[in-house]
Amino acid sequence: MTRWLAVAILPALAWGAEPPAKPLSLADLLQASAPTEWRDLDPQGTLYMDLPAGRVVIELAPDYAPANVEAIRRLVRDKYFDGSFVIRSQDNYVVQWARPDSDERAKAMAKVKVKAEFERPMDRKLEFTRLAYPDTYAPEVGFSQGFAVARDAKRGQAWLVHCYGSVGVGRDNDADSGNGSELYAVIGQSPRSLDRNITLVGRIVRGIELMSVIPRGPGPMGFYEKPSDYVPIKSVRLAADVPDADRVRLEALRTDSATFRAVVETRANRREEWFKDPVGRVGVCNVPLPVRIKGS
Amino acid sequence: MTRWLAVAILPALAWGAEPPAKPLSLADLLQASAPTEWRDLDPQGTLYMDLPAGRVVIELAPDYAPANVEAIRRLVRDKYFDGSFVIRSQDNYVVQWARPDSDERAKAMAKVKVKAEFERPMDRKLEFTRLAYPDTYAPEVGFSQGFAVARDAKRGQAWLVHCYGSVGVGRDNDADSGNGSELYAVIGQSPRSLDRNITLVGRIVRGIELMSVIPRGPGPMGFYEKPSDYVPIKSVRLAADVPDADRVRLEALRTDSATFRAVVETRANRREEWFKDPVGRVGVCNVPLPVRIKGS
Repeated sequence: MTRWLAVAILPALAWGAEPPAKPLSLADLLQASAPTEWRDLDPQGTLYMDLPAGRVVIELAPDYAPANVEAIRRLVRDKYFDGSFVIRSQDNYVVQWARPDSDERAKAMAKVKVKAEFERPMDRKLEFTRLAYPDTYAPEVGFSQGFAVARDAKRGQAWLVHCYGSVGVGRDNDADSGNGSELYAVIGQSPRSLDRNITLVGRIVRGIELMSVIPRGPGPMGFYEKPSDYVPIKSVRLAADVPDADRVRLEALRTDSATFRAVVETRANRREEWFKDPVGRVGVCNVPLPVRIKGS
Repeated sequence: MTRWLAVAILPALAWGAEPPAKPLSLADLLQASAPTEWRDLDPQGTLYMDLPAGRVVIELAPDYAPANVEAIRRLVRDKYFDGSFVIRSQDNYVVQWARPDSDERAKAMAKVKVKAEFERPMDRKLEFTRLAYPDTYAPEVGFSQGFAVARDAKRGQAWLVHCYGSVGVGRDNDADSGNGSELYAVIGQSPRSLDRNITLVGRIVRGIELMSVIPRGPGPMGFYEKPSDYVPIKSVRLAADVPDADRVRLEALRTDSATFRAVVETRANRREEWFKDPVGRVGVCNVPLPVRIKGS
Protein backbone atom coordinates (compact mmCIF):
# COMPACT_ATOMS: atom_id res chain seq x y z
CA MET A 1 0.00 0.00 0.00
CA THR A 2 1.18 3.48 -0.79
CA ARG A 3 0.24 6.78 0.73
CA TRP A 4 1.33 9.54 -1.55
CA LEU A 5 1.58 12.43 0.81
CA ALA A 6 2.82 12.81 4.33
CA VAL A 7 -0.22 14.83 5.43
CA ALA A 8 -2.69 13.05 7.64
CA ILE A 9 -5.29 14.04 10.13
CA LEU A 10 -4.52 12.90 13.62
CA PRO A 11 -7.93 12.46 15.13
CA ALA A 12 -8.57 12.00 18.81
CA LEU A 13 -9.80 8.48 18.24
CA ALA A 14 -12.96 7.59 20.10
CA TRP A 15 -11.37 4.30 21.14
CA GLY A 16 -8.14 5.78 22.50
CA ALA A 17 -4.59 5.67 21.19
CA GLU A 18 -4.57 2.14 19.77
CA PRO A 19 -6.48 1.39 16.59
CA PRO A 20 -8.88 -1.54 16.99
CA ALA A 21 -7.94 -5.06 15.84
CA LYS A 22 -11.14 -5.38 13.85
CA PRO A 23 -12.09 -2.30 11.82
CA LEU A 24 -15.04 -0.40 13.19
CA SER A 25 -17.86 0.31 10.78
CA LEU A 26 -19.71 3.62 10.65
CA ALA A 27 -22.60 1.88 12.45
CA ASP A 28 -20.21 0.61 15.17
CA LEU A 29 -18.82 4.10 15.70
CA LEU A 30 -22.23 5.72 15.99
CA GLN A 31 -23.37 2.94 18.30
CA ALA A 32 -20.41 3.64 20.61
CA SER A 33 -20.85 7.42 20.56
CA ALA A 34 -21.81 9.44 23.64
CA PRO A 35 -25.23 11.16 23.72
CA THR A 36 -23.43 14.48 24.24
CA GLU A 37 -21.79 14.11 20.83
CA TRP A 38 -25.16 14.67 19.16
CA ARG A 39 -27.16 17.87 18.85
CA ASP A 40 -30.87 18.24 18.17
CA LEU A 41 -31.66 20.00 14.92
CA ASP A 42 -32.91 23.50 15.73
CA PRO A 43 -36.66 23.64 14.93
CA GLN A 44 -36.15 27.29 13.90
CA GLY A 45 -33.54 26.21 11.37
CA THR A 46 -35.13 23.07 9.97
CA LEU A 47 -37.50 22.89 6.99
CA TYR A 48 -39.92 20.10 6.15
CA MET A 49 -40.62 19.99 2.42
CA ASP A 50 -43.51 17.61 1.81
CA LEU A 51 -43.67 16.05 -1.66
CA PRO A 52 -46.23 13.50 -2.81
CA ALA A 53 -43.44 10.90 -2.39
CA GLY A 54 -42.65 11.88 1.20
CA ARG A 55 -40.82 14.36 3.38
CA VAL A 56 -37.51 16.06 2.65
CA VAL A 57 -35.78 17.67 5.65
CA ILE A 58 -33.42 20.61 5.15
CA GLU A 59 -31.09 21.99 7.81
CA LEU A 60 -30.39 25.69 7.36
CA ALA A 61 -27.04 27.34 8.09
CA PRO A 62 -27.85 30.77 9.56
CA ASP A 63 -24.23 31.44 10.57
CA TYR A 64 -23.17 31.21 6.92
CA ALA A 65 -26.08 32.97 5.20
CA PRO A 66 -28.09 34.91 7.80
CA ALA A 67 -29.95 37.26 5.43
CA ASN A 68 -30.90 34.51 2.98
CA VAL A 69 -31.93 32.10 5.75
CA GLU A 70 -34.11 34.84 7.25
CA ALA A 71 -35.66 35.55 3.82
CA ILE A 72 -36.46 31.85 3.36
CA ARG A 73 -37.94 31.61 6.86
CA ARG A 74 -40.25 34.53 6.04
CA LEU A 75 -41.34 32.97 2.73
CA VAL A 76 -41.98 29.63 4.45
CA ARG A 77 -44.03 31.32 7.18
CA ASP A 78 -46.04 33.03 4.41
CA LYS A 79 -46.63 29.55 2.89
CA TYR A 80 -44.92 30.75 -0.26
CA PHE A 81 -43.78 27.27 -1.27
CA ASP A 82 -47.17 25.59 -0.81
CA GLY A 83 -48.18 25.10 -4.38
CA SER A 84 -44.66 25.51 -5.74
CA PHE A 85 -43.09 22.86 -7.97
CA VAL A 86 -39.88 21.16 -8.88
CA ILE A 87 -39.46 22.92 -12.22
CA ARG A 88 -36.00 21.62 -13.12
CA SER A 89 -34.12 18.33 -12.77
CA GLN A 90 -30.75 18.29 -14.50
CA ASP A 91 -28.85 15.04 -14.43
CA ASN A 92 -25.62 15.04 -12.42
CA TYR A 93 -26.31 18.60 -11.30
CA VAL A 94 -29.37 20.02 -9.51
CA VAL A 95 -33.09 19.90 -8.91
CA GLN A 96 -34.69 23.32 -8.53
CA TRP A 97 -38.04 24.39 -7.10
CA ALA A 98 -40.09 27.59 -7.27
CA ARG A 99 -43.50 28.96 -8.08
CA PRO A 100 -44.00 29.11 -11.85
CA ASP A 101 -42.93 32.40 -13.51
CA SER A 102 -46.54 33.16 -14.47
CA ASP A 103 -47.68 33.01 -10.84
CA GLU A 104 -48.60 36.38 -9.26
CA ARG A 105 -46.54 35.82 -6.12
CA ALA A 106 -43.56 34.79 -8.25
CA LYS A 107 -43.92 37.99 -10.29
CA ALA A 108 -43.92 40.06 -7.11
CA MET A 109 -40.81 38.23 -5.82
CA ALA A 110 -38.96 38.77 -9.09
CA LYS A 111 -38.19 42.33 -7.97
CA VAL A 112 -36.96 41.43 -4.48
CA LYS A 113 -33.22 41.37 -3.86
CA VAL A 114 -31.41 39.83 -0.90
CA LYS A 115 -27.70 40.41 -0.47
CA ALA A 116 -25.28 37.79 -1.73
CA GLU A 117 -23.74 35.67 1.03
CA PHE A 118 -21.16 33.73 -0.95
CA GLU A 119 -18.71 33.67 1.97
CA ARG A 120 -18.30 35.08 5.47
CA PRO A 121 -15.39 36.26 7.59
CA MET A 122 -13.48 33.53 9.40
CA ASP A 123 -14.16 33.57 13.11
CA ARG A 124 -12.38 31.59 15.81
CA LYS A 125 -15.67 31.17 17.61
CA LEU A 126 -16.98 29.26 14.59
CA GLU A 127 -16.14 25.58 14.97
CA PHE A 128 -13.89 24.16 12.23
CA THR A 129 -12.67 20.56 12.03
CA ARG A 130 -10.05 20.58 9.32
CA LEU A 131 -9.62 17.80 6.80
CA ALA A 132 -5.90 17.65 6.13
CA TYR A 133 -5.95 16.27 2.57
CA PRO A 134 -5.42 18.35 -0.54
CA ASP A 135 -8.55 19.75 -2.15
CA THR A 136 -8.79 20.82 -5.79
CA TYR A 137 -10.72 24.00 -5.12
CA ALA A 138 -9.82 25.50 -1.74
CA PRO A 139 -6.74 26.02 0.43
CA GLU A 140 -8.49 24.46 3.45
CA VAL A 141 -11.57 22.26 3.71
CA GLY A 142 -13.32 20.72 6.67
CA PHE A 143 -16.54 20.74 8.65
CA SER A 144 -18.39 23.29 10.69
CA GLN A 145 -21.71 22.94 12.51
CA GLY A 146 -22.64 19.87 10.47
CA PHE A 147 -21.73 21.33 7.08
CA ALA A 148 -18.86 20.86 4.64
CA VAL A 149 -16.95 24.13 4.49
CA ALA A 150 -13.85 25.67 3.01
CA ARG A 151 -11.60 28.48 4.20
CA ASP A 152 -8.94 30.76 2.87
CA ALA A 153 -6.87 32.07 5.79
CA LYS A 154 -5.05 34.56 3.58
CA ARG A 155 -8.31 36.23 2.66
CA GLY A 156 -9.85 35.54 6.07
CA GLN A 157 -12.98 34.04 4.53
CA ALA A 158 -14.99 30.84 5.06
CA TRP A 159 -17.83 29.38 3.00
CA LEU A 160 -20.14 26.41 2.59
CA VAL A 161 -19.10 24.12 -0.26
CA HIS A 162 -21.29 22.42 -2.85
CA CYS A 163 -21.63 18.71 -2.04
CA TYR A 164 -24.36 16.19 -2.78
CA GLY A 165 -27.49 17.46 -1.01
CA SER A 166 -26.34 21.08 -0.60
CA VAL A 167 -29.20 23.60 -0.89
CA GLY A 168 -28.69 27.02 -2.46
CA VAL A 169 -30.49 30.15 -3.61
CA GLY A 170 -31.02 30.41 -7.38
CA ARG A 171 -30.06 33.74 -8.88
CA ASP A 172 -29.80 35.59 -12.19
CA ASN A 173 -26.65 37.36 -13.35
CA ASP A 174 -26.56 39.94 -10.59
CA ALA A 175 -24.96 38.64 -7.38
CA ASP A 176 -27.89 39.93 -5.29
CA SER A 177 -30.63 38.79 -7.67
CA GLY A 178 -31.50 35.73 -5.57
CA ASN A 179 -34.01 36.11 -2.77
CA GLY A 180 -34.81 32.62 -1.52
CA SER A 181 -37.96 32.14 -3.60
CA GLU A 182 -36.16 29.75 -5.97
CA LEU A 183 -34.00 27.06 -4.39
CA TYR A 184 -31.88 24.19 -5.69
CA ALA A 185 -30.34 21.02 -4.31
CA VAL A 186 -27.27 19.22 -5.66
CA ILE A 187 -28.02 15.71 -6.98
CA GLY A 188 -24.72 14.82 -8.68
CA GLN A 189 -20.97 15.27 -8.63
CA SER A 190 -20.15 18.19 -6.34
CA PRO A 191 -20.28 21.30 -8.60
CA ARG A 192 -17.53 23.04 -6.68
CA SER A 193 -17.09 25.77 -9.29
CA LEU A 194 -20.32 27.22 -7.87
CA ASP A 195 -18.61 27.74 -4.50
CA ARG A 196 -18.30 31.46 -3.72
CA ASN A 197 -20.42 32.20 -6.77
CA ILE A 198 -23.86 31.63 -5.28
CA THR A 199 -25.37 31.56 -1.80
CA LEU A 200 -25.67 28.19 -0.10
CA VAL A 201 -28.15 28.10 2.77
CA GLY A 202 -27.98 24.53 4.07
CA ARG A 203 -28.31 20.92 3.10
CA ILE A 204 -30.83 18.10 2.83
CA VAL A 205 -30.33 15.89 5.87
CA ARG A 206 -33.09 13.41 5.10
CA GLY A 207 -35.09 12.40 2.01
CA ILE A 208 -32.66 13.45 -0.75
CA GLU A 209 -33.44 10.11 -2.43
CA LEU A 210 -36.93 11.49 -3.11
CA MET A 211 -35.42 14.43 -5.01
CA SER A 212 -32.61 12.63 -6.83
CA VAL A 213 -34.92 10.22 -8.69
CA ILE A 214 -37.19 12.92 -10.10
CA PRO A 215 -37.19 12.39 -13.90
CA ARG A 216 -34.79 14.73 -15.66
CA GLY A 217 -36.32 17.63 -17.57
CA PRO A 218 -36.04 17.48 -21.36
CA GLY A 219 -35.35 21.19 -21.85
CA PRO A 220 -32.05 23.07 -21.71
CA MET A 221 -30.44 22.79 -18.26
CA GLY A 222 -33.02 20.17 -17.26
CA PHE A 223 -36.00 22.53 -17.12
CA TYR A 224 -39.37 20.93 -17.80
CA GLU A 225 -41.04 22.20 -20.93
CA LYS A 226 -44.59 21.30 -19.94
CA PRO A 227 -46.08 22.31 -16.58
CA SER A 228 -47.68 18.86 -16.51
CA ASP A 229 -44.17 17.49 -15.84
CA TYR A 230 -43.72 19.64 -12.73
CA VAL A 231 -43.51 17.73 -9.45
CA PRO A 232 -45.84 19.43 -6.96
CA ILE A 233 -44.61 20.51 -3.53
CA LYS A 234 -47.46 20.14 -1.08
CA SER A 235 -45.99 22.37 1.59
CA VAL A 236 -42.79 23.66 3.14
CA ARG A 237 -42.86 24.33 6.89
CA LEU A 238 -40.43 25.38 9.56
CA ALA A 239 -40.21 22.49 12.07
CA ALA A 240 -41.03 24.99 14.83
CA ASP A 241 -44.41 25.66 13.21
CA VAL A 242 -45.41 22.00 12.96
CA PRO A 243 -47.38 20.32 15.76
CA ASP A 244 -45.21 18.08 17.94
CA ALA A 245 -46.83 14.92 16.61
CA ASP A 246 -45.88 15.79 13.02
CA ARG A 247 -42.23 16.60 13.70
CA VAL A 248 -39.33 14.31 12.85
CA ARG A 249 -37.03 14.27 15.88
CA LEU A 250 -33.62 14.37 14.27
CA GLU A 251 -30.21 14.70 15.84
CA ALA A 252 -26.92 15.32 14.06
CA LEU A 253 -23.49 14.08 15.06
CA ARG A 254 -21.49 17.12 16.17
CA THR A 255 -18.73 17.73 13.65
CA ASP A 256 -16.43 18.83 16.50
CA SER A 257 -16.90 15.54 18.37
CA ALA A 258 -14.35 12.74 18.84
CA THR A 259 -16.71 10.28 17.16
CA PHE A 260 -16.98 12.47 14.08
CA ARG A 261 -13.19 12.66 13.87
CA ALA A 262 -13.15 8.86 14.12
CA VAL A 263 -15.72 8.68 11.29
CA VAL A 264 -13.42 10.81 9.14
CA GLU A 265 -10.44 8.65 10.06
CA THR A 266 -12.16 5.36 9.18
CA ARG A 267 -13.39 6.84 5.90
CA ALA A 268 -9.88 7.95 5.01
CA ASN A 269 -8.25 4.68 6.07
CA ARG A 270 -10.35 1.79 4.84
CA ARG A 271 -9.45 -1.19 6.96
CA GLU A 272 -12.40 -3.35 5.92
CA GLU A 273 -11.35 -6.67 4.42
CA TRP A 274 -12.93 -5.70 1.07
CA PHE A 275 -10.41 -2.88 0.53
CA LYS A 276 -7.09 -3.97 -0.97
CA ASP A 277 -5.61 -0.48 -0.74
CA PRO A 278 -6.72 1.43 2.38
CA VAL A 279 -6.68 4.68 0.36
CA GLY A 280 -5.28 6.95 3.07
CA ARG A 281 -7.34 10.02 2.27
CA VAL A 282 -10.90 11.25 1.77
CA GLY A 283 -12.52 14.17 0.01
CA VAL A 284 -14.62 16.79 1.79
CA CYS A 285 -17.75 15.73 -0.14
CA ASN A 286 -17.12 12.02 0.55
CA VAL A 287 -17.36 12.19 4.35
CA PRO A 288 -20.77 11.18 5.75
CA LEU A 289 -22.42 13.71 8.07
CA PRO A 290 -24.55 11.45 10.27
CA VAL A 291 -28.11 12.47 11.13
CA ARG A 292 -30.51 10.04 12.83
CA ILE A 293 -33.87 9.81 14.51
CA LYS A 294 -33.23 10.92 18.09
CA GLY A 295 -32.52 8.00 20.39
CA SER A 296 -32.37 5.45 17.56
CA MET B 1 -10.34 37.28 -7.84
CA THR B 2 -7.80 35.03 -6.23
CA ARG B 3 -6.12 31.92 -7.54
CA TRP B 4 -4.63 30.02 -4.67
CA LEU B 5 -1.91 28.13 -6.44
CA ALA B 6 0.51 28.98 -9.16
CA VAL B 7 -0.17 25.77 -11.10
CA ALA B 8 -2.22 26.14 -14.25
CA ILE B 9 -2.67 24.16 -17.39
CA LEU B 10 -1.43 25.96 -20.44
CA PRO B 11 -3.60 24.56 -23.17
CA ALA B 12 -2.89 25.03 -26.85
CA LEU B 13 -6.01 27.14 -27.20
CA ALA B 14 -8.15 26.26 -30.18
CA TRP B 15 -8.50 29.97 -30.95
CA GLY B 16 -4.80 30.83 -30.83
CA ALA B 17 -2.77 32.78 -28.32
CA GLU B 18 -5.33 35.46 -27.44
CA PRO B 19 -8.33 34.57 -25.32
CA PRO B 20 -11.61 35.61 -26.94
CA ALA B 21 -13.34 38.86 -25.99
CA LYS B 22 -16.62 37.05 -25.37
CA PRO B 23 -16.34 33.78 -23.47
CA LEU B 24 -16.91 30.71 -25.62
CA SER B 25 -19.47 28.24 -24.37
CA LEU B 26 -18.99 24.49 -24.53
CA ALA B 27 -21.41 24.46 -27.48
CA ASP B 28 -19.37 27.21 -29.24
CA LEU B 29 -16.16 25.24 -28.77
CA LEU B 30 -17.63 22.00 -30.11
CA GLN B 31 -19.18 23.90 -33.01
CA ALA B 32 -15.77 25.31 -33.93
CA SER B 33 -13.94 21.98 -33.58
CA ALA B 34 -12.35 20.17 -36.53
CA PRO B 35 -13.84 16.84 -37.69
CA THR B 36 -10.44 15.21 -37.07
CA GLU B 37 -10.72 16.04 -33.37
CA TRP B 38 -13.49 13.47 -33.04
CA ARG B 39 -13.25 9.68 -33.10
CA ASP B 40 -16.01 7.18 -33.84
CA LEU B 41 -16.80 4.90 -30.92
CA ASP B 42 -15.43 1.43 -31.69
CA PRO B 43 -18.40 -0.92 -32.34
CA GLN B 44 -16.34 -3.72 -30.76
CA GLY B 45 -15.97 -1.66 -27.60
CA THR B 46 -19.45 -0.19 -27.29
CA LEU B 47 -22.41 -1.75 -25.45
CA TYR B 48 -26.08 -0.96 -25.92
CA MET B 49 -28.04 -1.74 -22.78
CA ASP B 50 -31.74 -1.51 -23.58
CA LEU B 51 -34.04 -0.77 -20.66
CA PRO B 52 -37.82 -0.29 -20.85
CA ALA B 53 -37.09 3.45 -20.53
CA GLY B 54 -34.62 3.54 -23.41
CA ARG B 55 -31.04 2.85 -24.43
CA VAL B 56 -27.92 3.26 -22.31
CA VAL B 57 -24.61 3.31 -24.23
CA ILE B 58 -21.40 2.20 -22.52
CA GLU B 59 -17.92 2.73 -23.92
CA LEU B 60 -15.46 0.06 -22.78
CA ALA B 61 -11.79 0.73 -22.00
CA PRO B 62 -9.89 -2.34 -23.24
CA ASP B 63 -6.48 -0.70 -22.73
CA TYR B 64 -7.20 -0.36 -19.01
CA ALA B 65 -8.96 -3.67 -18.29
CA PRO B 66 -8.37 -6.07 -21.19
CA ALA B 67 -9.28 -9.32 -19.44
CA ASN B 68 -12.44 -7.93 -17.87
CA VAL B 69 -13.55 -6.22 -21.09
CA GLU B 70 -13.03 -9.49 -22.95
CA ALA B 71 -15.04 -11.39 -20.30
CA ILE B 72 -17.90 -8.88 -20.62
CA ARG B 73 -17.81 -9.10 -24.43
CA ARG B 74 -18.15 -12.88 -24.17
CA LEU B 75 -21.07 -12.65 -21.72
CA VAL B 76 -22.79 -10.09 -23.95
CA ARG B 77 -22.33 -12.29 -27.03
CA ASP B 78 -23.86 -15.16 -25.01
CA LYS B 79 -26.83 -12.87 -24.29
CA TYR B 80 -26.06 -13.26 -20.60
CA PHE B 81 -27.60 -9.90 -19.66
CA ASP B 82 -30.85 -10.40 -21.57
CA GLY B 83 -33.22 -11.01 -18.71
CA SER B 84 -30.91 -9.52 -16.11
CA PHE B 85 -32.11 -6.76 -13.79
CA VAL B 86 -31.08 -3.65 -11.96
CA ILE B 87 -31.01 -5.25 -8.51
CA ARG B 88 -29.56 -2.33 -6.56
CA SER B 89 -29.92 1.45 -6.59
CA GLN B 90 -28.11 3.18 -3.74
CA ASP B 91 -28.54 6.92 -3.50
CA ASN B 92 -25.43 9.02 -4.13
CA TYR B 93 -23.49 5.87 -4.98
CA VAL B 94 -24.25 3.18 -7.61
CA VAL B 95 -26.84 1.24 -9.56
CA GLN B 96 -25.91 -2.40 -10.09
CA TRP B 97 -27.21 -5.02 -12.51
CA ALA B 98 -26.96 -8.80 -12.74
CA ARG B 99 -28.99 -11.95 -13.10
CA PRO B 100 -30.69 -12.82 -9.79
CA ASP B 101 -28.63 -15.08 -7.47
CA SER B 102 -31.20 -17.88 -7.84
CA ASP B 103 -30.76 -17.96 -11.63
CA GLU B 104 -28.93 -21.04 -13.02
CA ARG B 105 -26.56 -19.02 -15.20
CA ALA B 106 -25.76 -16.75 -12.25
CA LYS B 107 -24.98 -19.80 -10.12
CA ALA B 108 -22.59 -21.10 -12.79
CA MET B 109 -20.88 -17.69 -13.04
CA ALA B 110 -20.43 -17.48 -9.26
CA LYS B 111 -17.41 -19.79 -9.59
CA VAL B 112 -15.74 -17.93 -12.45
CA LYS B 113 -12.79 -15.69 -11.62
CA VAL B 114 -11.26 -13.02 -13.85
CA LYS B 115 -8.06 -11.34 -12.77
CA ALA B 116 -8.24 -7.98 -11.03
CA GLU B 117 -7.29 -5.03 -13.24
CA PHE B 118 -7.24 -2.23 -10.68
CA GLU B 119 -4.40 -0.44 -12.48
CA ARG B 120 -1.97 -0.90 -15.35
CA PRO B 121 1.62 0.05 -16.08
CA MET B 122 2.13 3.58 -17.35
CA ASP B 123 3.05 3.60 -21.02
CA ARG B 124 4.25 6.53 -23.09
CA LYS B 125 2.25 5.24 -26.03
CA LEU B 126 -0.90 5.68 -23.96
CA GLU B 127 -2.23 9.20 -24.45
CA PHE B 128 -2.43 11.31 -21.27
CA THR B 129 -3.67 14.89 -21.07
CA ARG B 130 -2.74 16.03 -17.60
CA LEU B 131 -4.96 18.23 -15.47
CA ALA B 132 -2.59 20.39 -13.48
CA TYR B 133 -4.72 21.05 -10.40
CA PRO B 134 -4.33 19.29 -7.07
CA ASP B 135 -6.41 16.15 -6.59
CA THR B 136 -7.34 14.71 -3.21
CA TYR B 137 -6.69 11.10 -4.16
CA ALA B 138 -3.92 10.80 -6.75
CA PRO B 139 -0.56 12.41 -7.51
CA GLU B 140 -1.59 13.05 -11.15
CA VAL B 141 -4.99 13.13 -12.82
CA GLY B 142 -6.04 13.74 -16.39
CA PHE B 143 -7.66 12.13 -19.39
CA SER B 144 -6.79 9.25 -21.65
CA GLN B 145 -8.74 7.87 -24.60
CA GLY B 146 -11.92 9.58 -23.48
CA PHE B 147 -11.71 8.51 -19.84
CA ALA B 148 -10.81 10.22 -16.57
CA VAL B 149 -7.60 8.63 -15.32
CA ALA B 150 -4.98 8.96 -12.60
CA ARG B 151 -1.30 8.09 -12.50
CA ASP B 152 1.46 7.59 -10.00
CA ALA B 153 4.78 8.07 -11.75
CA LYS B 154 6.72 6.81 -8.73
CA ARG B 155 4.95 3.49 -8.89
CA GLY B 156 4.71 3.58 -12.70
CA GLN B 157 0.99 2.82 -12.64
CA ALA B 158 -2.11 4.35 -14.28
CA TRP B 159 -5.80 3.67 -13.62
CA LEU B 160 -9.31 4.73 -14.48
CA VAL B 161 -10.94 6.83 -11.76
CA HIS B 162 -14.48 6.64 -10.41
CA CYS B 163 -16.52 9.56 -11.74
CA TYR B 164 -20.24 9.97 -12.40
CA GLY B 165 -21.15 7.37 -15.04
CA SER B 166 -18.10 5.13 -14.53
CA VAL B 167 -18.88 1.42 -15.02
CA GLY B 168 -17.13 -1.27 -12.98
CA VAL B 169 -17.10 -4.97 -12.20
CA GLY B 170 -18.76 -5.94 -8.90
CA ARG B 171 -16.71 -8.30 -6.74
CA ASP B 172 -16.72 -10.05 -3.36
CA ASN B 173 -13.82 -9.82 -0.90
CA ASP B 174 -11.24 -11.53 -3.11
CA ALA B 175 -9.62 -9.19 -5.61
CA ASP B 176 -10.25 -11.63 -8.47
CA SER B 177 -13.79 -12.56 -7.45
CA GLY B 178 -15.38 -10.32 -10.08
CA ASN B 179 -15.97 -11.72 -13.56
CA GLY B 180 -18.08 -9.19 -15.44
CA SER B 181 -21.44 -10.82 -14.74
CA GLU B 182 -22.36 -8.16 -12.19
CA LEU B 183 -21.72 -4.54 -13.17
CA TYR B 184 -22.29 -1.17 -11.54
CA ALA B 185 -22.45 2.45 -12.62
CA VAL B 186 -21.73 5.50 -10.45
CA ILE B 187 -24.77 7.78 -9.95
CA GLY B 188 -23.49 10.15 -7.26
CA GLN B 189 -20.48 11.93 -5.84
CA SER B 190 -17.35 10.30 -7.29
CA PRO B 191 -16.54 7.42 -4.87
CA ARG B 192 -12.80 7.82 -5.37
CA SER B 193 -11.91 5.51 -2.49
CA LEU B 194 -12.92 2.67 -4.83
CA ASP B 195 -10.09 3.64 -7.22
CA ARG B 196 -7.47 0.90 -7.36
CA ASN B 197 -9.74 -1.31 -5.26
CA ILE B 198 -12.02 -2.61 -8.00
CA THR B 199 -11.86 -2.98 -11.77
CA LEU B 200 -13.36 -0.20 -13.85
CA VAL B 201 -14.16 -1.17 -17.44
CA GLY B 202 -15.58 1.98 -19.01
CA ARG B 203 -18.25 4.60 -18.69
CA ILE B 204 -21.80 5.43 -19.72
CA VAL B 205 -21.55 7.90 -22.61
CA ARG B 206 -25.29 8.24 -23.24
CA GLY B 207 -28.48 7.53 -21.27
CA ILE B 208 -27.12 7.73 -17.71
CA GLU B 209 -30.22 9.79 -16.85
CA LEU B 210 -32.25 6.60 -17.36
CA MET B 211 -30.19 4.82 -14.68
CA SER B 212 -29.82 7.67 -12.20
CA VAL B 213 -33.58 8.10 -11.64
CA ILE B 214 -34.25 4.44 -10.86
CA PRO B 215 -35.96 4.41 -7.44
CA ARG B 216 -33.52 3.64 -4.62
CA GLY B 217 -33.71 0.17 -3.08
CA PRO B 218 -35.03 0.01 0.49
CA GLY B 219 -32.58 -2.71 1.65
CA PRO B 220 -29.04 -2.32 2.98
CA MET B 221 -26.73 -0.77 0.37
CA GLY B 222 -29.74 0.02 -1.83
CA PHE B 223 -30.54 -3.58 -2.79
CA TYR B 224 -34.16 -4.27 -3.61
CA GLU B 225 -35.84 -6.63 -1.20
CA LYS B 226 -38.58 -7.81 -3.56
CA PRO B 227 -37.83 -9.06 -7.08
CA SER B 228 -40.94 -7.16 -8.18
CA ASP B 229 -38.91 -3.98 -7.63
CA TYR B 230 -36.19 -5.07 -10.06
CA VAL B 231 -35.89 -3.00 -13.23
CA PRO B 232 -35.69 -5.40 -16.18
CA ILE B 233 -32.90 -5.16 -18.72
CA LYS B 234 -34.28 -6.18 -22.10
CA SER B 235 -30.93 -6.82 -23.73
CA VAL B 236 -27.27 -5.86 -23.81
CA ARG B 237 -25.55 -5.98 -27.20
CA LEU B 238 -22.18 -5.13 -28.62
CA ALA B 239 -22.72 -2.34 -31.17
CA ALA B 240 -20.86 -4.51 -33.73
CA ASP B 241 -23.57 -7.17 -33.40
CA VAL B 242 -26.46 -4.80 -34.00
CA PRO B 243 -27.79 -4.20 -37.53
CA ASP B 244 -26.69 -0.89 -38.99
CA ALA B 245 -30.16 0.60 -38.77
CA ASP B 246 -30.31 0.00 -35.00
CA ARG B 247 -26.95 1.51 -34.17
CA VAL B 248 -26.44 4.92 -32.57
CA ARG B 249 -23.64 6.63 -34.51
CA LEU B 250 -21.68 8.28 -31.74
CA GLU B 251 -18.42 10.14 -31.86
CA ALA B 252 -16.32 11.30 -28.93
CA LEU B 253 -14.14 14.39 -28.71
CA ARG B 254 -10.52 13.19 -28.59
CA THR B 255 -9.10 13.95 -25.18
CA ASP B 256 -5.73 14.71 -26.79
CA SER B 257 -7.25 17.36 -29.10
CA ALA B 258 -6.80 21.13 -28.93
CA THR B 259 -10.55 21.58 -28.57
CA PHE B 260 -10.66 19.28 -25.57
CA ARG B 261 -7.86 21.26 -23.93
CA ALA B 262 -9.90 24.40 -24.61
CA VAL B 263 -12.93 22.73 -23.00
CA VAL B 264 -10.85 22.04 -19.89
CA GLU B 265 -9.55 25.61 -19.89
CA THR B 266 -13.00 27.18 -20.14
CA ARG B 267 -14.28 24.89 -17.39
CA ALA B 268 -11.41 25.87 -15.12
CA ASN B 269 -11.69 29.59 -15.89
CA ARG B 270 -15.33 30.59 -15.90
CA ARG B 271 -15.58 33.79 -17.89
CA GLU B 272 -19.36 33.73 -18.30
CA GLU B 273 -21.06 36.84 -16.94
CA TRP B 274 -22.89 34.76 -14.32
CA PHE B 275 -19.65 33.83 -12.53
CA LYS B 276 -18.42 36.41 -10.04
CA ASP B 277 -15.25 34.45 -9.27
CA PRO B 278 -13.82 32.65 -12.32
CA VAL B 279 -12.68 29.79 -10.04
CA GLY B 280 -9.33 29.07 -11.76
CA ARG B 281 -9.40 25.30 -11.39
CA VAL B 282 -11.48 22.22 -12.14
CA GLY B 283 -11.68 18.69 -10.76
CA VAL B 284 -11.07 15.58 -12.86
CA CYS B 285 -14.68 14.44 -12.40
CA ASN B 286 -16.07 17.89 -13.25
CA VAL B 287 -14.73 18.08 -16.79
CA PRO B 288 -17.28 17.15 -19.48
CA LEU B 289 -16.17 14.43 -21.93
CA PRO B 290 -18.20 15.33 -25.02
CA VAL B 291 -19.91 12.57 -27.03
CA ARG B 292 -22.40 13.39 -29.78
CA ILE B 293 -24.37 11.88 -32.61
CA LYS B 294 -21.94 11.78 -35.51
CA GLY B 295 -22.23 14.84 -37.72
CA SER B 296 -24.64 16.63 -35.39
